[in-house]
Amino acid sequence: MATPSKPQASSTTADPSLSSFIGIYEQEESRFIREWSELLSFKSISTDPAFDGECRRTAEWLVGHLTKIGFSARLLETSSKPTVFAEFKGKVGAKRVLFYGHYDVQPVDPLEDWTSEPFSPELREGRLYARGAQDNKGQTFYFLKALETLIARSELATSVTLLLEGEEECGSDGFAQALPGWKDLVQADVLMVCDTGALAAGVPFVTMGLRGLVSLEITLGGIHHDLHSGALGGVVRNPATELARLIASLHRPDGSIAVSGYYDEVTEFSAEDRALANRSWPSDDKITALLGVPPVGGERFYSPPERRGFRPTIEVNGMYSGYQGPGGKTIIPSVATAKLTSRLVARQNPERCLKLLIDHLKAHAPEGLEFKIVASRVGGPALALSSADELIQRARRVLDTLGPVPAQFTWEGGSIPIVAELVKVSGARPLLVGFGLEEDRIHAPNESFALSQFRLGFLYACAMLSELSR
Amino acid sequence: MATPSKPQASSTTADPSLSSFIGIYEQEESRFIREWSELLSFKSISTDPAFDGECRRTAEWLVGHLTKIGFSARLLETSSKPTVFAEFKGKVGAKRVLFYGHYDVQPVDPLEDWTSEPFSPELREGRLYARGAQDNKGQTFYFLKALETLIARSELATSVTLLLEGEEECGSDGFAQALPGWKDLVQADVLMVCDTGALAAGVPFVTMGLRGLVSLEITLGGIHHDLHSGALGGVVRNPATELARLIASLHRPDGSIAVSGYYDEVTEFSAEDRALANRSWPSDDKITALLGVPPVGGERFYSPPERRGFRPTIEVNGMYSGYQGPGGKTIIPSVATAKLTSRLVARQNPERCLKLLIDHLKAHAPEGLEFKIVASRVGGPALALSSADELIQRARRVLDTLGPVPAQFTWEGGSIPIVAELVKVSGARPLLVGFGLEEDRIHAPNESFALSQFRLGFLYACAMLSELSR
Repeated sequence: MATPSKPQASSTTADPSLSSFIGIYEQEESRFIREWSELLSFKSISTDPAFDGECRRTAEWLVGHLTKIGFSARLLETSSKPTVFAEFKGKVGAKRVLFYGHYDVQPVDPLEDWTSEPFSPELREGRLYARGAQDNKGQTFYFLKALETLIARSELATSVTLLLEGEEECGSDGFAQALPGWKDLVQADVLMVCDTGALAAGVPFVTMGLRGLVSLEITLGGIHHDLHSGALGGVVRNPATELARLIASLHRPDGSIAVSGYYDEVTEFSAEDRALANRSWPSDDKITALLGVPPVGGERFYSPPERRGFRPTIEVNGMYSGYQGPGGKTIIPSVATAKLTSRLVARQNPERCLKLLIDHLKAHAPEGLEFKIVASRVGGPALALSSADELIQRARRVLDTLGPVPAQFTWEGGSIPIVAELVKVSGARPLLVGFGLEEDRIHAPNESFALSQFRLGFLYACAMLSELSR
Repeated sequence: MATPSKPQASSTTADPSLSSFIGIYEQEESRFIREWSELLSFKSISTDPAFDGECRRTAEWLVGHLTKIGFSARLLETSSKPTVFAEFKGKVGAKRVLFYGHYDVQPVDPLEDWTSEPFSPELREGRLYARGAQDNKGQTFYFLKALETLIARSELATSVTLLLEGEEECGSDGFAQALPGWKDLVQADVLMVCDTGALAAGVPFVTMGLRGLVSLEITLGGIHHDLHSGALGGVVRNPATELARLIASLHRPDGSIAVSGYYDEVTEFSAEDRALANRSWPSDDKITALLGVPPVGGERFYSPPERRGFRPTIEVNGMYSGYQGPGGKTIIPSVATAKLTSRLVARQNPERCLKLLIDHLKAHAPEGLEFKIVASRVGGPALALSSADELIQRARRVLDTLGPVPAQFTWEGGSIPIVAELVKVSGARPLLVGFGLEEDRIHAPNESFALSQFRLGFLYACAMLSELSR
């Protein structure tokens, strides 16, 4: 098995234990890959009931594996897929770590776009290819291998509880329902999650925030059927035009949200956090090349990483009305619909924000048409950390030793609603460090994970768990 | 054959010739229906090339029929379907009438919704059922029967030119292209068109205006693919949100059009015309019951019939972006599209309006996304008449004698672009009087035309042609 060529953990590191973890990885890599591949061969697609059995077998395999490496493991049943629960009792009075991951994966279609079979892992040019290779089986597995290593060396002083759920890719409903009932089982000091990504290979990234989420589907209508746009244009209100006006009412000309009270709970961020967020951000040119358009959306007086990390947004995810075929059709559409989501930050209360948003839409909906809320959902609150946090500072010191580039800090714009819930139930401080890269193509055909990133994850987990064991 | 029961032409009319026309109709009705049914049995669906032969046979049947009733008739070829051209030479110095109609019909699907075969005309409860029974074979045929009657009685002093085209239902492209070349053939004083409707049975309606039309399809995009609305929300502009804002920029809060210069050529209408338009308009309650929504669209300071008759509009006919399936999808859509049409009035120049609209959209398109005009089309200018017009006053006197209810005047919101073009080429004043009703279900299954309306059309044509022969 070839040793990953880049980037190596610094060999000049002052920490002697890191050198020994590197040595262990080099010795054990081929076994790690073999076991990781075994885990990847399970078709644990959670969104399709046809794979329910496969999901359970995956969970059972994990229980067996965890038992073998020194955990007391079992399944916790939910109304949906079972959750793998495992405990390692550390020294009395030592820190308690809760690790969250998931063993379920995305569907594989279009299957014909895969170079190798999605559930027959294949190593090519330093990457392991399979569905779940990274998300989240791969990132979970380096963590398990680190735990195994520390337990085998009797170096794990912390108590560790593992929660590996089986429906992250389809909404976590059963898991989220069951979680409060497991409160006593999951009490911890630190919540470690590796289901996040890095913006560059070989560089450790700490995810400092996740945004909250509320969603909403609305319609404007009430007209019996599409009308002739000549005969009735100017007579009745046009649902498409009015929906556009309603959506336009959500933002001010400077790009800020016009919903009354929406910023009430939004706090300013520190100069240090702001500097950290801006430091890890790619140039405008790089973004334009990547996406096709420049990063000029959102609020005018914040930089792009500030806007995504520290500011709420309201986005239209879908909008539909009237005729879409070739040519034209001179109608006033009978109805217009929009799907909206809002990302929330820091202390914003999701229930309150959803109510403010609905109140705004109701207040701005035009007379003469029927306004309806078709669906609404509170996805969860935001998770916001500061670089001033003591746990983050400890992680930073550890991560800075891993390679030539110091740790980077990123306030992600996305949402993992379950993380905020886990923080609440467990009472733990969260630490989100993951080594996924854009090129891993998670959720797409030919998902893979670089061995070099797997190795870095292993080293991070070994080093951080050692740090917490002190 | 049963005599139509309602509404009868007033038997107390002072005009003795009207009584004789009524007598002729009663005598000849069954023959008229037989011949009209023969015309309806041709499957002259112009939009489907499979029926090209049927269209030509229809046109040839009309040439034969017109020749029989006293016209010199022939086909004029176009790049598409042939046009039936027929002339009757009246007295030297008498008025010259140009009549425009069309012999092509709409497709018949869904065929299973028809009670009787669409091309096997069937008389049921005072209505003749067939595709084209009204639009426009029926309304053309009562006019031909009136011409036949007057010629047979040697009472037709006017010269009459007939132009019956074969592609009105599919855009009139070939006809419109050929028309300027027929300029010398179609010079006239009065252009009579019966391809319009009435808002109540038994009541003559004069269509006083048709709106012009320009159309436009636009997109906002430039993003390579749909983006994660969390990771990039607030970073790039959202095409759906921005399209909504762009569309919202087209109108002011009071419902008026915000495009600079759009009203420059719009003239105010006379108090008389305004009163006439308002008089023939149904109540708000009636409209709400019919359409599902109240007539509160368009410009705040005009009544519904004023808004549709005398004021331009910009309507969204279709709008599309992002995800439309069940549930949600947290994306920033890569592109958003809209189909727009604008109805124009009176003296508005369509080319100028289209340019103003495009200029407005370009000026208001957001930076950071790609704005594209995908398609644009000038449909034609408006046609606007006033009740002060001498021809309209003559028609009004004639129509007032036809029944118990005086003639009504309606400024239609729709567009028949070819009429404005015919006016331009022929130099004639237009007179649009038709007897179609909403219940005729033109363009839909089970199209029909009431014999009572056919009879009223016949009487109108006899009386008006007699009036013009004086």
